[in-house]
Amino acid sequence: MGKVIFGVDLGGTTVKMGLFDPNGNVTEKWEIPTDKSDEGKKILPDIADAIKKKMAEKSVAKEDVIGVGIGVPGPVDGDGVIFKAANLGWGTFSIKDTLSGLLDGIKVEAGNDANVAALGEMWKGGGKGYSNLVVVTLGTGVGGGIIIDGKILTGSTGAGGEIGHIHIVDDEPDTCGCGNNGCLEQYASATGVVRLAKRRLAEDDEPSTLREREISAKSVFDAVKEGDKVSIEIAERFGEYLGKGLASVACVVNPEVFVIGGGVSKAGPVLFDYIEKYYKKYVFRGCSDVKFALAELGNDAGIYGAAKLVLG
Amino acid sequence: MGKVIFGVDLGGTTVKMGLFDPNGNVTEKWEIPTDKSDEGKKILPDIADAIKKKMAEKSVAKEDVIGVGIGVPGPVDGDGVIFKAANLGWGTFSIKDTLSGLLDGIKVEAGNDANVAALGEMWKGGGKGYSNLVVVTLGTGVGGGIIIDGKILTGSTGAGGEIGHIHIVDDEPDTCGCGNNGCLEQYASATGVVRLAKRRLAEDDEPSTLREREISAKSVFDAVKEGDKVSIEIAERFGEYLGKGLASVACVVNPEVFVIGGGVSKAGPVLFDYIEKYYKKYVFRGCSDVKFALAELGNDAGIYGAAKLVLG
Repeated sequence: MGKVIFGVDLGGTTVKMGLFDPNGNVTEKWEIPTDKSDEGKKILPDIADAIKKKMAEKSVAKEDVIGVGIGVPGPVDGDGVIFKAANLGWGTFSIKDTLSGLLDGIKVEAGNDANVAALGEMWKGGGKGYSNLVVVTLGTGVGGGIIIDGKILTGSTGAGGEIGHIHIVDDEPDTCGCGNNGCLEQYASATGVVRLAKRRLAEDDEPSTLREREISAKSVFDAVKEGDKVSIEIAERFGEYLGKGLASVACVVNPEVFVIGGGVSKAGPVLFDYIEKYYKKYVFRGCSDVKFALAELGNDAGIYGAAKLVLG
Repeated sequence: MGKVIFGVDLGGTTVKMGLFDPNGNVTEKWEIPTDKSDEGKKILPDIADAIKKKMAEKSVAKEDVIGVGIGVPGPVDGDGVIFKAANLGWGTFSIKDTLSGLLDGIKVEAGNDANVAALGEMWKGGGKGYSNLVVVTLGTGVGGGIIIDGKILTGSTGAGGEIGHIHIVDDEPDTCGCGNNGCLEQYASATGVVRLAKRRLAEDDEPSTLREREISAKSVFDAVKEGDKVSIEIAERFGEYLGKGLASVACVVNPEVFVIGGGVSKAGPVLFDYIEKYYKKYVFRGCSDVKFALAELGNDAGIYGAAKLVLG
C-alpha cells in the first residue's frame, strides 16, 4: 500500500490511532483503551502492539513506515522527552526513544497533545494554508497551540501556548485550577461560560429563556441566536474577556489566524461576532488584520497532527 | 585579516556599523549620518559606500566578507522585505536584495531593529547561553524582541514581540501613541514611569524627595534606593503593570529568560525586586522559574545582532 505514517493521540481514557498516506489522507482510524495501571507502564507497549498488528493486517513492511507520531497529555520538549504526565502516572523519559525501541527502530516523533492538535488543524483543518497560527481550544479548560513558520512553539519548559492562564481579571474571587485568580480559562472555557451565565442570571430577575434551560455554553449561544437579551449580555462578557486575551497573544506572536476549537466552538460563527468586536478594540493595530476560523477536525486533530509531526 | 562580517544598525539619525570576526569580536565600530532626504534614497548607497571604504582601508577582499547584517526601524519579514519605515521615508522593498546589489552580490540579511538587538543580547549580552528569550526594551516606549530556538520571532506582519501594546489597564483616560488606552507602554516605559510618578505625587501631599527633583525614571529609582516611601509606591505600581504584562508573555512563549534593557534598565537590579514580585503573582506556575537579567550591550546590541543575523 505504499509508504505510510501512523498518527497516535494518547488520551487519559483511549488512544486514538490513524493510518495515513504521506499526503495526509487517513485510510483507517481506530482506538484502543489507555491502560493506566502500574504507573502507565503498559501504555507504550500496547500502542506498539496495535501498530504492529495493523502493519501485519495491511501487509505493511517496516521499510514502508515513514514514522510514528504521537501526541501526549503533558509537557514534551523538542527532543521528545516528556516531563511528567500525572494523568498517566508517567515520570520523565524519552517517549521518542522508548516507543522507537518497541517498534524495532521505526522513527518516532512526540509532542504535547494540544500542540500536536494545532499542527493537525494547520495541516488539514481550519488553519490550512497558514503557517503562523494560534489554535485556541475552548473545552473544559482553555488550551492553546502555537505554530510559528509551520513548527510548534514548545516553550522552554513545554508551557508554550498556555494561553488559558493569561491573567484577565484583577478582582476575581474564584480560584482557577492552576491556583491563580482571574485566568482567561475562568471565563472562556465551557465551564467559564456557565459561570458567566450563572453570575449574570443572579444579578437581577430580568426574563430570559436561559432561566428555563440547563445552563451550558451551548444553551447560552442557542439563546443568543434566538435574540435572548440576557444571553447576549453573557456573550458580550465572554467576547470581551476572550478578545482581550487573544489581543495580548497577538502582540506577542502576531499570527495570521486564530483557529477556535473545543466544545464551545460548536456554537459556530456567532462566536466571532463577540470575540472579534473586542479583539479589535484591544489589539495593537499592526495585528488587527488577523483572521478567525473554526477548527474543523474535532477529535481527529490529534492524529492528523501526530502524523504531520513525522513529516516535519 | 581573515573572514569578516559587517553589522549595521540603521537609526533615524545615525547608522552604527561594526566590523566583526566570525566569533563575534568587534574589531572596529563607527557611525555615519542617516541621510533621510529624497525619501531615504541615499541611505543604502551611503551604507554600501561606507562598507566598501572600510574593506579597502582594511584590505578585506570580497570573498572574505561572510555577509552584511542590517537592523532597520520598521517591520521586516523573513525574506528581508521591509513594509514601510515612515521614519526613513521608505516604502516596501527588499532591503536584502537592494543592499546586496549595491555590494556586488555580498550576502545581506535584514531584520527589524528591536528584534535584531534581541538577537545581539542572546549572542553576546544579557541573554548569552539561552536560546529562548524575550528582550524587553524600556525606553521612550516599550519594545520587545522574541527569540525562539535561537531565531527571531518575526510574526506574520512583522509585529511579533510588540509587547508594549499588551492591554493592561481598563480605565486609562490617556491614549497611547498607538491609539489604544491602557497599553503596557503607558506605565513601563521611561515616560510611563514619569506618568505614574506624577499621578502618585498629585494624589496627596505626602513628603517625598521626589518633590524637589526633576521627575524621571532615574530619579524615581534613585529615590527608591534611598528608601523614599512615595517612590517605592510608584515602583510597586510599575512592577505590578510590567510583571503582569510579562506573565502574559510567558504564557504564550514560555521563555527561559527575560532580558531587560533600555533607559529604565539603568536603574539596575532594583527593578527586578518589583517586576519579579508581581510576575510570580500573576504567572502560570509552569513558567514561574524564568530568569530575569539586565541587557549588557546597550547601544551596541543592534550591530552585534545584525552580525549574528548573517551567521544564522
